[in-house]
Parts: sequence; structure tokens; C-alpha cells
Amino acid sequence: MEDILPLVRTAKLPSPVLKPAVPREDSASAESVVQQQDAAPGSPRLAPYQALPVTKSTIITHNITPALPVLEPGELDKEELEARINKVIDDYKEKLQLRTDHHMGYPYNLDFDYGPLEGLQKYCINNLGDPFIESNYGVHSREFEIGVLQWFARLWEIEVDDFWGYITNCGTEGNLHGILVGREALPDGILYASRETHYSIFKAGRMYRMDAVKVGTLDSGEIDYDELQGHLAANAARPAIININIGTTVKGAVDDLDRETGYTEDRFFIHCDGALFGMMIPFVKRAPMVTFKKPIGSISVSGHKFVGSPVPCGVVMTRLRYIKGVSSDVEYLNSRDATIMGSRNGHAPIYMWYTFTRKGYEGLRKDVEKCLRNAHLLKSMLDTAGVRTMLNELSSTVVFERPREESFVRKWQLACEGDIAHVVVMPNITIRKLETFVQELVESRARVSVAEALKLAEDARAHAGDEE
Amino acid sequence: MEDILPLVRTAKLPSPVLKPAVPREDSASAESVVQQQDAAPGSPRLAPYQALPVTKSTIITHNITPALPVLEPGELDKEELEARINKVIDDYKEKLQLRTDHHMGYPYNLDFDYGPLEGLQKYCINNLGDPFIESNYGVHSREFEIGVLQWFARLWEIEVDDFWGYITNCGTEGNLHGILVGREALPDGILYASRETHYSIFKAGRMYRMDAVKVGTLDSGEIDYDELQGHLAANAARPAIININIGTTVKGAVDDLDRETGYTEDRFFIHCDGALFGMMIPFVKRAPMVTFKKPIGSISVSGHKFVGSPVPCGVVMTRLRYIKGVSSDVEYLNSRDATIMGSRNGHAPIYMWYTFTRKGYEGLRKDVEKCLRNAHLLKSMLDTAGVRTMLNELSSTVVFERPREESFVRKWQLACEGDIAHVVVMPNITIRKLETFVQELVESRARVSVAEALKLAEDARAHAGDEE
Repeated sequence: MEDILPLVRTAKLPSPVLKPAVPREDSASAESVVQQQDAAPGSPRLAPYQALPVTKSTIITHNITPALPVLEPGELDKEELEARINKVIDDYKEKLQLRTDHHMGYPYNLDFDYGPLEGLQKYCINNLGDPFIESNYGVHSREFEIGVLQWFARLWEIEVDDFWGYITNCGTEGNLHGILVGREALPDGILYASRETHYSIFKAGRMYRMDAVKVGTLDSGEIDYDELQGHLAANAARPAIININIGTTVKGAVDDLDRETGYTEDRFFIHCDGALFGMMIPFVKRAPMVTFKKPIGSISVSGHKFVGSPVPCGVVMTRLRYIKGVSSDVEYLNSRDATIMGSRNGHAPIYMWYTFTRKGYEGLRKDVEKCLRNAHLLKSMLDTAGVRTMLNELSSTVVFERPREESFVRKWQLACEGDIAHVVVMPNITIRKLETFVQELVESRARVSVAEALKLAEDARAHAGDEE
Repeated sequence: MEDILPLVRTAKLPSPVLKPAVPREDSASAESVVQQQDAAPGSPRLAPYQALPVTKSTIITHNITPALPVLEPGELDKEELEARINKVIDDYKEKLQLRTDHHMGYPYNLDFDYGPLEGLQKYCINNLGDPFIESNYGVHSREFEIGVLQWFARLWEIEVDDFWGYITNCGTEGNLHGILVGREALPDGILYASRETHYSIFKAGRMYRMDAVKVGTLDSGEIDYDELQGHLAANAARPAIININIGTTVKGAVDDLDRETGYTEDRFFIHCDGALFGMMIPFVKRAPMVTFKKPIGSISVSGHKFVGSPVPCGVVMTRLRYIKGVSSDVEYLNSRDATIMGSRNGHAPIYMWYTFTRKGYEGLRKDVEKCLRNAHLLKSMLDTAGVRTMLNELSSTVVFERPREESFVRKWQLACEGDIAHVVVMPNITIRKLETFVQELVESRARVSVAEALKLAEDARAHAGDEE
């Protein structure tokens, strides 16, 4: 990984780009977001990783999903029905392929090949309940799930007998689980997380009726450590449940795990949200270790992000003693299950098992290296082309000025927040794809610039009237 | 459906069978469940639809999942690795087929054929966020999702402009969503549900820090209406969030939706848990209608149960005005999303769309008819063979005495609770399968009886000593 050393800690953007013109979610009410939508119909401001909100306004006029109605087979003869269905599926596959080819914005590794597993779709594989104890339903994949969990236990340095975890439906489920385990361990605890934290953490706080403190951030996107210390000191009478971001959603910033809380270990619980970068950081030289040798309570990562999978999935891991505490002391689990969901997708563990077995730790290390190198290349290409950028040292998320042509944003499926956009360089982003992307971006910016320049001339002509 | 009319309202079992010897979850602490485990290692008492709990005891000795470790590819050459992987997958497929062939206990329709959709596994399809508003991530299946939701809207009689809903990961997610929407609508509301309710409802109450009342049940498994009335009257000062079971987990009992609450409509919220039977009841003659024309707040059903799907999934539907209330008034959604999960499986909507398009309402009606007819047949066969049974009029869940050979229970993957077991007759349960099942059950019972009878003789011989 020596060749990616030139990465700088935080290559700062000029501040206007880092301070979005749009109010962030803590200050923007649902209503104001909608007003904004209504005010600028041509350019909906989509939040990263999220659709627009359903809000008070009954009329949402942008990006409404068209329905593909269920056909009523009674109206058609059998052959016609088959033909209609096949046409729908074939057209859809074509669309999927096109969109997969032009995807840059979300941290999903779209480069996977699970061909040998296709036959498994014939089976209803369901790991309902606890992964470690088989239920009577036999069509499950728990043995793969446990294998994958043990692989993670080795990665995160926790003994096989000391951990508990499961394969989730997505990063959000892992976060909901981690925060719940924290709350049950410290029922009176206050939830702390930075303002650039994924929305699911504060959603958990509201669902669970917890007091939550939103802490400010540094320019890099890391939590403001001094501000956090201030809150912790002021609330010293109550325990702390602290969310640590291992790569924030927008800027890929990594909160420093090794700061002192000033609390004794029985009075804080640290949840690590490592949705994307939690899978990458163990393979990054010089990165802080995410390990259960530190006093953390739980880690959540996604499986469909860096690993890549047809379905969203993830892993959450905690210490066995917390789960025991949950089931005996508070019994939210009804003494029967320790997962958020009841039925659980049994295909996801097989995808993970398959990828890890094929790639191994070494293959993943190479993927990480490639991503970081290509992220650095993209940043250099954009800098050279005069586009302002930012790249955190430990991240493959390249932040840059939001392109002003909405069609370009949609084509490349960029996640945007206010004035900034980002590309998350995943293993499926090749140098060739970066070439096309940068070329099209520069052309798009040129079109906007030319249009603006000509607009000046047009205005001048109108003002000059017949004089010209 | 005329030919299934002989079904009786509630064919009662003698009471010992209906009163499990094992304390139920409301009286049994996590600890007592474990003690019971330890006390009877040969016959773990598995709760229906659930694995055993993770509890205080650090040693759980039954049904521990064996791990299938991730292989480290570095240790093997490429060909050997491929061969090893293929062997694992092939063996696993064989096991899946065998288990699928001998499954009777869980309400999963294992009879589906999604062959034409197999190519879709190449794509990472993710409907992250709200189904109705497209996010920037282009590889989604929202158009299918909306088509499916509109199909359900027609089924449950709600106007397209009045509903909101989404395709969930399972019945539990739908229940977590429905109860959360109810709590946000009535923050001070008390949660009421019967003791035979699926565990996810009370789990929701604990997660959301709600006051909850567990109401007793009638022999049929329905909620005890008088007891519920009593609680509602006693707590009249606070609003009510009432869970109504459209088919309980164990007995398939349907709570009567049409009872008076005594509360004005703005002071109660009814969530209908229709995991399995919510999909069947619209097609059952003489069954009470589950419809949004009644004052209900939300409905949750599973997609992998009656419909059948490789992955667990479901649908939750509520009134649009509640969702608006949630996002504007309480903001647990962070003003951005209205679903429990963030990333959402985009394959599930396509499975449902495909099944509904192929079968139509008429095809589903025929499936329901077949299930009810075969459930009645199974009950008659068991009655004739001297096995005590129970079958609720509106259910395809045949309850009977728990078989005493654990190997039989495991082979047929029966869900058991205390002294009772059940078979949920799904469309994949054929008459031929019922024949095999009943024959093997009777043989199993005979083996147990013979063993017990011979034990008496053996004891007598020991007692008689040399006299014989």
C-alpha cells in the first residue's frame, strides 16, 4: 500500500463548498425541505443514501415512482401473459445493466459474481431467530452465518466464546441493534453522536425514547472532540452511549476511537458505525485499529457495500455478556430472540461466506488498496481539471462541488448534500470508468459555464435594446 | 369454496392439550426456560418460529449451530479452492432439497418457481428509503414495489391517494412499523395485545418504552374480549394502541375486529398482525373482512408465508395521514425516511409482483381453498387415527398433540409449544405428503407406546427378581 502514501490528512475545500447552503437535517424541518423542493422543481436536493421525505405537503412533484401494476392474468390468455411478463423482466434487466454501468455515488460494490449460487434461489432459506441455536425450521444457512461471524471475530479480535452477533438486513439494522444493546446495558444513558452521523443513529434514539445529543463536527467530518468532552463533563451524572463513525456517510471521516471519555468503563457504551469503512479499515496501513481489545460495545458494518451482494445485508457484533444482560434483565427480547428482525434472510450469509472464501483477507486487502489508489487518482484528475475536491486520508470517498446539471447527477447516480457531491470509489470503479466520468463532468461544467456566459450577453442585448 | 363448509368454529381439544405444561413466555423468565433446557437435554422445548433464547446460562448444549468456517484461499491452489467451494454448495443444495421436502411446521409456502428471475441476482437491487420517491441510486425496483402496494390497496380497500406502505424484510418489521406509527400518533397510548400474540409485538413495546398490557385468550386462541374491555375501561384516561391478530402464530385464531372499543376514533389505533392469514382471509368466504373501511391504522403481512419467496419479506400498509404525522410532528424519521430499515431488498417486490401477476386474485383464492380443504383432511385423518386435534374455522393451522419422538419433530420441522405441535397447511402440502406424514406420525406414536408398555414389563420383571 506504499504507493498511496501521498494521501493527505484532510485536503480542505474552500469553505463555501464545505458549508452547504441548504440547512442540514437538524435545523431543517420536514416542511422546509418540502418548500425547498417546491421552490426549485428542476433540482431536487436529495439527501445522500435516502429518498425524499414524506411530509406534510400532500403534493410531492419530483421523482415520484411510476407504478408497474400487477397484471390480472384473467384478462390475458396464458401465452400472452408469459410474453408480457418476459417483456417486463427483459426490459428491466436492460435498465438494471445500464444503471449498474453508470453508478458512482453510493458505496456499493457492484462487481460481484455469485453465478455458482444461483440455484439456491429455489429455496426459502430463513435463519429465523438466534444464529447460534438452530430452530426447528430446517431450511436455513446458520452454518454459513456462524462461519462468517467467526471470520469477523478474527478480524475484530474477539474470542469465539466472547462475542455474539448476526447477519443483518442492512447497516441500519446493525445500528438499531447496537444502540438498543447500549440502552439496555445503560438504561439511563444519553446517546451522543456527531451531526454528520448516519440518520439511523438518531432514528434509533427517537424510536427508543432516549435523550440524544447531536455533537458538532470538524471540517474533516470527524466529531468535535472538545465539544463532546464538554457534553460528557456536563452530563457526568448519567452514563454515555457514544456512536463512533468509522467513515461518515458523506465525507468518509473516521472518528478517533482512542480519546478518553473520562467515564469508567461500566458507565459508557461505544457503538461503532462502520457501514462502509468498517470493512476497509482493517486493511489500511496506519489506520487506527477497530478491535474489541478496546473498550467498545458493538460494531455494525454493511455487507452490500464493500463486499458486494445482490441484497442489502450487514453484520453486527457485540460482546456476549451484553446480550445476556439484555435477555435476562430487561427482557425486551421476550426471552426468545436477540435480533431486531424475526425471520432473517438466509441467502445473505452464503454470499458473504462465498466472497470471503474466494478472496480471503489478502484479496480484500488488494481491493482496499485499489480503491484508495483510484480515489486518489480521481481526486488528482479533478484537481487538475479545476474541480474543487476533498479526500480524507483514510477514505475512498471523493467529495467535490455538486455538478449543476441535474441530468448528470442522475445519470451517474451521485449522492449529494447541499452544494457537495461525492463519488465512493468501490472495487468496481475502474480507471476507465473514472476517465469517462471526469470527461463527462468537465463537459457538463463547460455547458453550464457557456450557458451562464451567454446569458450575460443575452441580458446585455436585451438591455441595449435596438442600440446593437 | 363450498366443499370446505364442514369446518367447525372451534373443534376443541381436551383441555390438557390446550394447557401446555410448560409455563408460557409471560410467566417463564429467561432463566426458567434455560433451566428447563438443562433439565431435559434430550427434548429441547422450542418455541414456535423461534430459536432458543440466549440467556444467563453460558452453556447452551442443544441444537448449537456447527460452523462452516470461511476457507482461507491462500492455503489452497485455485483449482482445489474451486472444488472445495463447489462441494460445499452442492452438499448444501442436497440438504436444502431434503429439508424442503420434509417441511410441515412453519407457515412457509415452499412451492414457488422464480426461474425467469434468476438473472436478477447479478444486480444489487436496493430500494433504499421511501418507496414512493426515487432516490438517486438507480438500481432499484420501486416500480414493482408500488405496483404490489397498489394491488394490496385494492385488496384492503383503501384509495391509492390515502395509503402509505412498503415492502418489509419480514412480518416483524411490519409489526415494528405499525406499532411505532401507532405510538407516534398516540404518544401516551397503552399497547394491548393478547398473550398468544407474536412475540414481535411485545418486543416493539419494550423497544419503544411503551406501557403494555398482555390480555388473556379464549380456548380458541382469540383475545379475551371481556378482559380487554375491562382494561380499556380501567385505562380510559389514556389512548389505546391495540394489536389484532389475523391468525395467531400457534392456533391460527382470528381476533374479532368489529368489537367496540368504547373509545372515540382519535383515541385508539388498531394494528392488524396478519403475518400468515392476512393474505388468506380476503379469499375465505364468511370470514370477517380486513379492510381500511373499518377504523384500523395499519396492517402487516408476510410475503414468504402464503405467497412464497426465497427471502423473508412482507408488506406493511397504513394511512398516509399517519405517516405525515410521524414525519412532521415527532420526527423520529429524521425527516427523511419513513421505513424501519434504510437499505431495502429490491428483489422481494419483484418476487411478489411476479407471483401476483401469474396467479392473480383468482389463483390465490384457489390456493386458499386447497389449503383449507387439506387442513380439514389432515384433521380428519388425525382424528381417525386417534390423535387429538384442534382446527379453528378460519385457519389452515392444524394443532395436535406434540409427538414425543424428538427425531420425528425435527424431521418434519414441527413448531411446538409445550404439549402441542402444529402443521400449517400451505399450498405446497399435497395430499400425498399428508399421507406420508400421518403414517409416520402414527408409527412414531406406536413406537413410543410400545416402548412404554415394555418398560412396565421390564420394571415388573426387575421387581419380581428371580421369581419369574
